[in-house]
Amino acid sequence: MARWTPDARSRLAKAALALYIERGFEQTTVAEIAGRAGLTERTFFRHFADKREVLFGGSAVLEAGLVAAVAEVPDGSPLEMMVAALETAGSFFVDDRRAWAGQRQGVIEANTSLMERELIKLRALGGALTGALVRRGVPESAAALATQVGLVVFWQAFGRWCRADHPADWGVTVRQVHAEVRAVVGAAPD
Amino acid sequence: MARWTPDARSRLAKAALALYIERGFEQTTVAEIAGRAGLTERTFFRHFADKREVLFGGSAVLEAGLVAAVAEVPDGSPLEMMVAALETAGSFFVDDRRAWAGQRQGVIEANTSLMERELIKLRALGGALTGALVRRGVPESAAALATQVGLVVFWQAFGRWCRADHPADWGVTVRQVHAEVRAVVGAAPD
Repeated sequence: MARWTPDARSRLAKAALALYIERGFEQTTVAEIAGRAGLTERTFFRHFADKREVLFGGSAVLEAGLVAAVAEVPDGSPLEMMVAALETAGSFFVDDRRAWAGQRQGVIEANTSLMERELIKLRALGGALTGALVRRGVPESAAALATQVGLVVFWQAFGRWCRADHPADWGVTVRQVHAEVRAVVGAAPD
Repeated sequence: MARWTPDARSRLAKAALALYIERGFEQTTVAEIAGRAGLTERTFFRHFADKREVLFGGSAVLEAGLVAAVAEVPDGSPLEMMVAALETAGSFFVDDRRAWAGQRQGVIEANTSLMERELIKLRALGGALTGALVRRGVPESAAALATQVGLVVFWQAFGRWCRADHPADWGVTVRQVHAEVRAVVGAAPD
């Protein structure tokens, strides 16, 4: 009978990240991750498809949260709605998560196969957010463009927020990057 | 002694794309691609690292061309320079290439592992273009943001240009998408 394993997912993710930092992603086996977490390989594969996926346990939660936020934000231009939705992710990107996120990002950026997974998740997020904007009545083409620009804001904001010395919280960072994107494209300040 | 193999790269790429369409990417082996091109597996691996890479033979050419273009375009805002550089890729995205590009894109979008390679190439292109803008004197952070917005223009323009029924050439498509991005972000029309 399987052991009761409260919070197995986050234990596996923490063990994996620690091992990837200590030994490198390529050199770490699933058996070692499971061992470090005090769990079996079988339990690992009940939760994650592979050694990459264990670092992306939060993606589905983030995507579901952002899609729900797009459904609920006040009416505005497609990009304004997208940015307002991104700001709500401050309940996901809490300060307690910053150190983990920064270490995780360092590991991902050092490994092409992890970066590939990251980028494909970002692409899937884009598809989901475009769908959410379309359901708000935005035409497909404008929704796709607003989402892509929104993802630029998201990705830049995330890169800054991850840094240990970044002084601002998530919502402030998103608004700041949005203002910079407006400036880059030549829009007047808000 | 190796046979003389003029244009082996493009023969391999054409054979690979044909087989990926006929049988699917997963089901096709390197031996089959080489056979279809009338070449050996050994020749394949002299030109391409793997079965994915054979569809990305143009990436390095495109990247080098765009980096050179950023170095040469007239002074302007970082995004204006980036868009001007993108427009010059009309000598790469010629009408003769459209049918190949559209078929290739269909195969890539149907296969996660090919899409991962595509996205990682796009990321590398972004890094190279940011560097090129920095060498034009643009501060790093503005260069990164202008590049990311530029890649949104590039990617959307490419998606439209690939479609067999798209009526406009590359340069016109880039300018059109740039105008739409300006509108999405709330900038006044040019």
